[in-house]
Amino acid sequence: MPDRATQRVTGELPVREASAVAVDIPADATLVVSGFGSVGYPKAVPRALAESDRDLGVTVVSGGSGGDELDTEMMAAGQVARRYPYQVTDEARERINGGEVAFHDRHISRLGDEVAFGGLVDADIVVVEAVAAGEGWLIPAMSIGPTPDYIAAADRLIIEVNDHPPLAVQQLHDIYSRAQPPNRGPIPLETPADRIGDQFIRFDPSKLEAVVHTDQPDVAYSFREPTDSDQEIAANLATFLTEELERNPTLADRVTLQFGVGSLGNALMGELASIDFGNREVTYYGELIQDGLIDMLDAGELTAASSTALAVTPEYQQQLYDDIERYAEQIILRPGYISNDPDMIDRFGIIAVNAALEVDIYGNVNSTHIDGSHVISGIGGSGDFNRHSPLAITALGSTARGGDIPRILPMVPHVDHTEHDVDVIITEQGVADLRGLSPREHAQEMIGIAHPSYRADLQAYCERAKQYGGNVPHDLNTVFDWQERS
Amino acid sequence: MPDRATQRVTGELPVREASAVAVDIPADATLVVSGFGSVGYPKAVPRALAESDRDLGVTVVSGGSGGDELDTEMMAAGQVARRYPYQVTDEARERINGGEVAFHDRHISRLGDEVAFGGLVDADIVVVEAVAAGEGWLIPAMSIGPTPDYIAAADRLIIEVNDHPPLAVQQLHDIYSRAQPPNRGPIPLETPADRIGDQFIRFDPSKLEAVVHTDQPDVAYSFREPTDSDQEIAANLATFLTEELERNPTLADRVTLQFGVGSLGNALMGELASIDFGNREVTYYGELIQDGLIDMLDAGELTAASSTALAVTPEYQQQLYDDIERYAEQIILRPGYISNDPDMIDRFGIIAVNAALEVDIYGNVNSTHIDGSHVISGIGGSGDFNRHSPLAITALGSTARGGDIPRILPMVPHVDHTEHDVDVIITEQGVADLRGLSPREHAQEMIGIAHPSYRADLQAYCERAKQYGGNVPHDLNTVFDWQERS
Repeated sequence: MPDRATQRVTGELPVREASAVAVDIPADATLVVSGFGSVGYPKAVPRALAESDRDLGVTVVSGGSGGDELDTEMMAAGQVARRYPYQVTDEARERINGGEVAFHDRHISRLGDEVAFGGLVDADIVVVEAVAAGEGWLIPAMSIGPTPDYIAAADRLIIEVNDHPPLAVQQLHDIYSRAQPPNRGPIPLETPADRIGDQFIRFDPSKLEAVVHTDQPDVAYSFREPTDSDQEIAANLATFLTEELERNPTLADRVTLQFGVGSLGNALMGELASIDFGNREVTYYGELIQDGLIDMLDAGELTAASSTALAVTPEYQQQLYDDIERYAEQIILRPGYISNDPDMIDRFGIIAVNAALEVDIYGNVNSTHIDGSHVISGIGGSGDFNRHSPLAITALGSTARGGDIPRILPMVPHVDHTEHDVDVIITEQGVADLRGLSPREHAQEMIGIAHPSYRADLQAYCERAKQYGGNVPHDLNTVFDWQERS
Repeated sequence: MPDRATQRVTGELPVREASAVAVDIPADATLVVSGFGSVGYPKAVPRALAESDRDLGVTVVSGGSGGDELDTEMMAAGQVARRYPYQVTDEARERINGGEVAFHDRHISRLGDEVAFGGLVDADIVVVEAVAAGEGWLIPAMSIGPTPDYIAAADRLIIEVNDHPPLAVQQLHDIYSRAQPPNRGPIPLETPADRIGDQFIRFDPSKLEAVVHTDQPDVAYSFREPTDSDQEIAANLATFLTEELERNPTLADRVTLQFGVGSLGNALMGELASIDFGNREVTYYGELIQDGLIDMLDAGELTAASSTALAVTPEYQQQLYDDIERYAEQIILRPGYISNDPDMIDRFGIIAVNAALEVDIYGNVNSTHIDGSHVISGIGGSGDFNRHSPLAITALGSTARGGDIPRILPMVPHVDHTEHDVDVIITEQGVADLRGLSPREHAQEMIGIAHPSYRADLQAYCERAKQYGGNVPHDLNTVFDWQERS
């Protein structure tokens, strides 16, 4: 491996056409693929498979969300039998919720190990997008995810070398590999901005089956404009954080933030500029970097941003490519098992802000399944941050669909994050600080941040539930009446 | 601090009567107390408070379960307004479930930080049982728990020096303190048997308000004899583990186990002797050490056992006291934030076996709340081990009360551990290995280990739920009909 890769392909690699590679993939193969935050996913081989019209029933495990070639085209061709752990396309959702495709969402922090040792799948072939490759090494594109573990676990390796991202993105990478348990040492990061690894991933050259060229960009990100509700949530968050900065001794010198993905997260990042952090250093340590963070870096409000993927709009992507030397001083892309590592979240004392689908009066959170049954995307890293952050904040509007659907319920019909994990819930109506309170008290706090048009019904539920007694009073006969209403 | 304490009290300490100390505790004080696994809890001061008949409304935060002085006598006197995070007495349960005492159960791994920084409570007074104390140091008794953090967080310190446990128990202790975030380093343990800390806890001498003498033993532990069901569960666990030893590369050289507390856990430990671990080193790293582990140490089947409390029957306690030099070579007592640390569970690749109240067909686990409302004890460390263990096993009988109550349900009405956290569920009927399967497949696996008399009903629920579709099919209209039945 040279100090820095200066060409796309170095040495004698088996360059082949995607269509020829696709033919060699067994019909029941288990494919583990790169891709996280809808960037850095393989494009040519999945498309060639979809276009081959072959009768396949493959298992596909990605790092996070990928692209349409896999989750729309191969899905539509009926070629995917199993799909883990996250997806964002209509086609994939429909087939998963219809029971045609077996799906299970897993925590980002544990995914690499689950493929390597935990029995999630036995990986046959790993397909990785790279900006460059050589004999025994490759440089990932715009996401890292669990790719180092996937490459180590699979029997055969296919590399898609993509000419679209500049070679210089290698400077963002910091790829650290861990030993396997039981002799796994601690992660030697001391600050969110540290670099402890390499810019490339090594592989066993005997596994390399093909290198395929592409020049296709990732799917283009877009964020909706912040709504009034987003801005009210953001203002409530800013007020809360300002008070917490004064109260919490671990925030005296450095504040490290994480924001969940999406338009609300992006809007919340924008509001951070309104907080007076004083002399504190402010850093970001999360799984995705979005446009709002680039603005903060440019404005000098943030000293560093660490993630496992760069999920930005094309405009910001271009801005990044144009000035990559400068951005590489502040932006670090790490494997998902580092970006979401429980120990780093704890040791840095990260303040985590994540969205949710709905929450209940006792603080349980549903991030994934509508009506408790129909999955949207997956749990992603929300469980990693909600569980391990010493200050885990869930931010969401108190209603959906213009007020027709309440998002604070008596009981969520699917629990991704328990009442033990979430500290604070914020809506456009206010802040429910659940710390140090009992479930009965949680209910009153939650009613206080529900939409006013639902507060009386929630209070009536609490009164009804109290008849049955208990630490967490519930009336199981009527607890899901609200779901029937919606 | 001398190398080893040779007397109960060293130096000029303010020795006082418990009754005199109790008078000085404000009526609305927040007391944080030692005690974990019903050992090492303060006895004299809580009893003196209860006997004082004072009109109090104190907040009490322990490490885990304590004793009757606090959770029966003070509770019965109506002196406790708030109680975190775990309790095991009838009196405490009744008042919590009746809504008289505010309670919330929290993860053991996070408790020290939550008291120190997280806003759970603002600690006024810490009351600690010790076997010895001096100017600026004390040696805890039979449990450590979060005591080091509690001592650092509280304004005033009361030490109960108990003459009952021998001074020599100090040799078991390994007390390591962590820096606070954001500059918290990793825990430098390399194996479960390592020692990295001190045998004592330091404190600021200006905080010391009183030293009280007692000689009262901890409450006596007892375990029921293993039932037929326990033994069938144990046999299924042994069969499963034997296969996993062959499959999992992280188990090739050293196997580290954790077992949840209780009679089932104790019975499961006994069954380990029937497993052929080959040349592997077998160690234990959990929150409690029970009788079954002492037998394994004595038989040479275990090389070391690390925990935060020694919860053994009086017979085993005496055996331990009589031969403490020898046991101190293999038994290590650590703070709860080390015994339950997410990173150590991950780095050691611990196989975790924990009991539950009930589970559902999709793998969600209720460990704490009967009918989703009435708390039994608390979540304790079950969340720490279920989430972070690479192989998290839940073991329970398929029915309760002699078969009258099914423990595998369509939906648990309280979720402590989500479908993302639990890998394998074992009953006396068999093993459901949920890894790598979808929720619909989980349901079929779970029906396979349900009691035969409930399988048809569970299958009928699945068919009914499928009409509504989804990744996790549910019929919310009938999902809790089983709870009404029971």
